[in-house]
Amino acid sequence: MGYKNMKAAILTVGTEILFGQIENTNASYLSRELNNLGIDVMYHNTVGDNLNRLTDNLLHLLKECDLIITTGGLGPTRDDITKEGVSIAINKPMVLNGDVKIWLENRFKKTGRNITENNYRQCYFPEGADIMLNDNGTAPGMINTINYNDESRYLITLPGPPREMKPMFQRDVIPFIKSLSDEHIVYEFVRTSGIGESLLESKIMDLVDEQTDPTIATYVTYGEVYLRITSKRRTAKEAHDSVTKMIEILKSRIGRYIYYVGNKNIEEIVIEKLKEKNLTVSSSESCTGGMFGETITKYPGSSEVFQTSLVTYSNESKANILGVSKKTLDSYGAVSEETAGEMAIGTNTVSKSPICVSVTGIAGPGGGSSDKPVGTVCFGIYYRGRLNTYKKLFKGDRNSIRKQSVLWMFRYIYEVLGEKDEK
Amino acid sequence: MGYKNMKAAILTVGTEILFGQIENTNASYLSRELNNLGIDVMYHNTVGDNLNRLTDNLLHLLKECDLIITTGGLGPTRDDITKEGVSIAINKPMVLNGDVKIWLENRFKKTGRNITENNYRQCYFPEGADIMLNDNGTAPGMINTINYNDESRYLITLPGPPREMKPMFQRDVIPFIKSLSDEHIVYEFVRTSGIGESLLESKIMDLVDEQTDPTIATYVTYGEVYLRITSKRRTAKEAHDSVTKMIEILKSRIGRYIYYVGNKNIEEIVIEKLKEKNLTVSSSESCTGGMFGETITKYPGSSEVFQTSLVTYSNESKANILGVSKKTLDSYGAVSEETAGEMAIGTNTVSKSPICVSVTGIAGPGGGSSDKPVGTVCFGIYYRGRLNTYKKLFKGDRNSIRKQSVLWMFRYIYEVLGEKDEK
Repeated sequence: MGYKNMKAAILTVGTEILFGQIENTNASYLSRELNNLGIDVMYHNTVGDNLNRLTDNLLHLLKECDLIITTGGLGPTRDDITKEGVSIAINKPMVLNGDVKIWLENRFKKTGRNITENNYRQCYFPEGADIMLNDNGTAPGMINTINYNDESRYLITLPGPPREMKPMFQRDVIPFIKSLSDEHIVYEFVRTSGIGESLLESKIMDLVDEQTDPTIATYVTYGEVYLRITSKRRTAKEAHDSVTKMIEILKSRIGRYIYYVGNKNIEEIVIEKLKEKNLTVSSSESCTGGMFGETITKYPGSSEVFQTSLVTYSNESKANILGVSKKTLDSYGAVSEETAGEMAIGTNTVSKSPICVSVTGIAGPGGGSSDKPVGTVCFGIYYRGRLNTYKKLFKGDRNSIRKQSVLWMFRYIYEVLGEKDEK
Repeated sequence: MGYKNMKAAILTVGTEILFGQIENTNASYLSRELNNLGIDVMYHNTVGDNLNRLTDNLLHLLKECDLIITTGGLGPTRDDITKEGVSIAINKPMVLNGDVKIWLENRFKKTGRNITENNYRQCYFPEGADIMLNDNGTAPGMINTINYNDESRYLITLPGPPREMKPMFQRDVIPFIKSLSDEHIVYEFVRTSGIGESLLESKIMDLVDEQTDPTIATYVTYGEVYLRITSKRRTAKEAHDSVTKMIEILKSRIGRYIYYVGNKNIEEIVIEKLKEKNLTVSSSESCTGGMFGETITKYPGSSEVFQTSLVTYSNESKANILGVSKKTLDSYGAVSEETAGEMAIGTNTVSKSPICVSVTGIAGPGGGSSDKPVGTVCFGIYYRGRLNTYKKLFKGDRNSIRKQSVLWMFRYIYEVLGEKDEK
């Protein structure tokens, strides 16, 4: 069976999500991963730790979806009911898996903890399930293949904690899903700069409408517009050729707006380029309050390229730490290209990083004025003795303005890194 | 009708959520708000911009839930189909609302934009709907009261962008929901420190089991354990008394672990205390990369109390910017109480803030060793000439370790702020 038109659902099990205590990041992670495998996600559902509602939900989703992935509810306690729910929904009794029992006992032995009666619940699975052992916890996952009206359906359960769920998905679920298909999927992102979504769509509307393979999808996040070109073909080469050909056509249409073609996001691209060139970056931040530093340091290994961020939220700290002159602050204000420029140069003086980027702006909700409305953000970038400053007006709420600001900091770094090296 | 046992569902409409492009923060926000109103959320569902699936989902949820809140899909374009779905599900025809038409035309006139034919779609609603005008966008929301097997059910639609959705929910939906009830709900959080969830539960198990009103719920987020005491009574006073009485009992049981009783989170408490005492805080961050600064500056008005964060990710920046001695870094390592202490003092030298807090740790996934495993985090706090340092071992992935670190930075500030003022 190919999975060209496979329909998927993600079912999250956990009362803590329904309380709003934690965001459902598992659902968005799995959605992105399934998308990359060419599979459409039709539903995200969340139910609490309640056997009836879980079972009903599974039965409902099985009617429409070829693939259901659950996360959560696999722990040892009585309110962990995902496996029982699956057992009822697919009408297979729970049976002890001897291999898992040995694995679990060894796991406990190794860490010097005593296994409790409760933990043995983790050794029972619906009959016929394929077990996925857990490298980062005690709850194994499973893959259930079901015959449903003479079609195959797949019900996969994964643990809830992301650090257990993600490695299991990568190691076991992706190869399993790929094995279902005799098709090959290739995709690439085309990232643009300086063009709005509607203008971009109007320039390539005919391509989007005409194409069945490769497909072209438009995405917008925090002001960045990008395209995803996806091909599913019988061979990897055919799929790759189809994507490459379309990218050439796109370059001829909107080439001047394209700044990157590939599968990475702007942070990864910048970190990679900095590593290549053996350069470090430092930043000074005002309205973003540390979000640039926090964003770059999300990536393990960023320590090679990131030196420091000086979060100068107050005017005093801009003056004392970065040496922004009182005159500049008084005449132009904290949110000005002049201040941003002095911040970037001051960052260089303090950090000695070859690339220094600064940001100062009005993220709202208060603080705006008629000539500097909420959303006004100024940037400076200092590299090889040259300073550039910029001013932008972003739309959105405080969080969105801050995120857009950080995105643009990465873009400015990307831009100067792309400049031809001088002798 | 009271809503003592009202069951709610949140239905998100939007293909971008199913793509995993954005997190479903609306669902967690609404869950928390409904919880605060004493309403249990049973389901989170997400469907794409597809009329059939939306309608099916609504019909399914209406069977079980008294209150359904949708977000998204209210825009002017053809893929915005929430109102049509509601119209079909509740069997009411779409009709033009003249007041909304005038409101919308005025809105466009004011901003100097031309109204297009598409926009007039925003003036149609299922017959009988109560309209909620939108102060921050062009999509009004609505409240539909439905007779379902002789019971009242409520289907409320809200716009998708959080900056439109949240104000509408606060202004119109909360008073509406409150008006359904002749009960009064009062709740408070009891925040604890230095006690694990299971030990805490064992100490108050009998209270949790015995009580029907007030109820006691235990929450854990990023290592913090807190309780929520909720009472629903006929008068606000009765509910308030019931909560107060229970808090007294809790204080006698676990008083030494309680550091705060009220409705705020630790960041808000700290910001408030700093304002009260007219103090500013500065920080230096390593493993958190700026997350402390980013977290405190999420709160509008934090500029009064937050001066600077020095994100010194590299050893060079710890030495050059904060003056951490090479000897300390060499003998004890970047992740040590000694380094954290010198970071906090260095922050004071640079920023002159009366309270300075520092953090340095191993957030993983790499970088751990047998004596300093991943999750080892050291802190320093400097206040009134006194330095305290701490060492913690956190569990979890990179993101969780970083978040726990930031939470503890706020706790340490809270602790020193609580000390008796010296002459």
